[in-house]
Amino acid sequence: MFANECIDFTDLFVKHFCFWEHLSEEEKRILCENMTMMKFKKGENIHNANENCLGVILIKKGHLRTYMMSEDGRDITLFRLFEDDVCVLSASCIIDTITFDIFIDAEEDSELLLIKSDIFEKLAEKNIYIKNFQHEITSTRFSDVMWTMQQILFMSFDRRLAIFLMDEIAKNGKDEIKLTHEQIARYMGSAREVVTRMLKYFVGEGIVELSRGGVKIIDKNKLRELAQ
Amino acid sequence: MFANECIDFTDLFVKHFCFWEHLSEEEKRILCENMTMMKFKKGENIHNANENCLGVILIKKGHLRTYMMSEDGRDITLFRLFEDDVCVLSASCIIDTITFDIFIDAEEDSELLLIKSDIFEKLAEKNIYIKNFQHEITSTRFSDVMWTMQQILFMSFDRRLAIFLMDEIAKNGKDEIKLTHEQIARYMGSAREVVTRMLKYFVGEGIVELSRGGVKIIDKNKLRELAQ
Repeated sequence: MFANECIDFTDLFVKHFCFWEHLSEEEKRILCENMTMMKFKKGENIHNANENCLGVILIKKGHLRTYMMSEDGRDITLFRLFEDDVCVLSASCIIDTITFDIFIDAEEDSELLLIKSDIFEKLAEKNIYIKNFQHEITSTRFSDVMWTMQQILFMSFDRRLAIFLMDEIAKNGKDEIKLTHEQIARYMGSAREVVTRMLKYFVGEGIVELSRGGVKIIDKNKLRELAQ
Repeated sequence: MFANECIDFTDLFVKHFCFWEHLSEEEKRILCENMTMMKFKKGENIHNANENCLGVILIKKGHLRTYMMSEDGRDITLFRLFEDDVCVLSASCIIDTITFDIFIDAEEDSELLLIKSDIFEKLAEKNIYIKNFQHEITSTRFSDVMWTMQQILFMSFDRRLAIFLMDEIAKNGKDEIKLTHEQIARYMGSAREVVTRMLKYFVGEGIVELSRGGVKIIDKNKLRELAQ
């Protein structure tokens, strides 16, 4: 049915691309033969507003950060993508309804499966299930972004920082967070000074301790209270 | 083919709902028979996060404002909808991928055609073209919101206000804008004090004159420069 190298991908397709069962054998073959594996180092840029758009991404391993950037270089994290997530905004050039561009960086060494934009576009044009998939994923990201915006625009900064720290320790399973104030500010769409000031306040409240390049939570209950 | 009262709607469907040609006669009949006309007065709330979701809306006449609201009642305009626009976020309860809720008010006396959520949901479940339409419209709104967010988060306030005033005079075809500072602040996701301060600065620069409940542009070139 497929070339040998494709067989490995079939399971992935079935699992992550709900349109798979609605493809013809020919469409399956095209998709499969045009799948590329890409590797990115931690910190590397994967997609940005100034270059041609990459394509549809499936994250096999690693962890990506998506963000928007102002003309003067300030950036705001929109959402993060983890193993098994699919990203279509990296193929925004082929989605008529998407008029904005985002940036995507690898936050860890990452392995991605890529379907190039032109291949995906041709398939989506002819198969409504693929097109629907593309819009459905986009609409999920819309929800992610709305959540982020509500945080940024409406929440007091102490609460936002508490939620951020709670999320980090939940994600890493450790009470110590290895991020600089600068990095925290970037993830939260804020400024370093604002983060430093609030962390110092948290220290005063006995909630955290600061170390070189990190933050240690010493009173999780207090932090949780703030976050709620 | 249809009950008499449906005939009027067919043209509208063909024009605004690209899935129409992919419907069976039975689906067309269901959609048509379950279309309701609704009228709202200027200022009236149409949809909000606390009530059951209304359904898919087509704006026949008028003009709507969509916004998000913080727990303490601050609101931020997300986008506006005009004649011929379709809104599916007013049926967010039936869109799995949408986890947020918006508010919608009529900004003028408005006439809407409504397909109730349960009817639309049943049809979309069985017809991929309807489902795709729903996600496609959502993805357009995502672009609208991203534009708004870039404005709010990245642009200096003088530029944002200049753009807002330019948009208003372009829309109304008059150099006088009949909005209070409070209303302008609301549309821009800002505070009245901030708007008042900046408008006073614009007065000082000879760009605008202030009147009771309004702003008059007296130097359009300067305003345009600021907006660029």
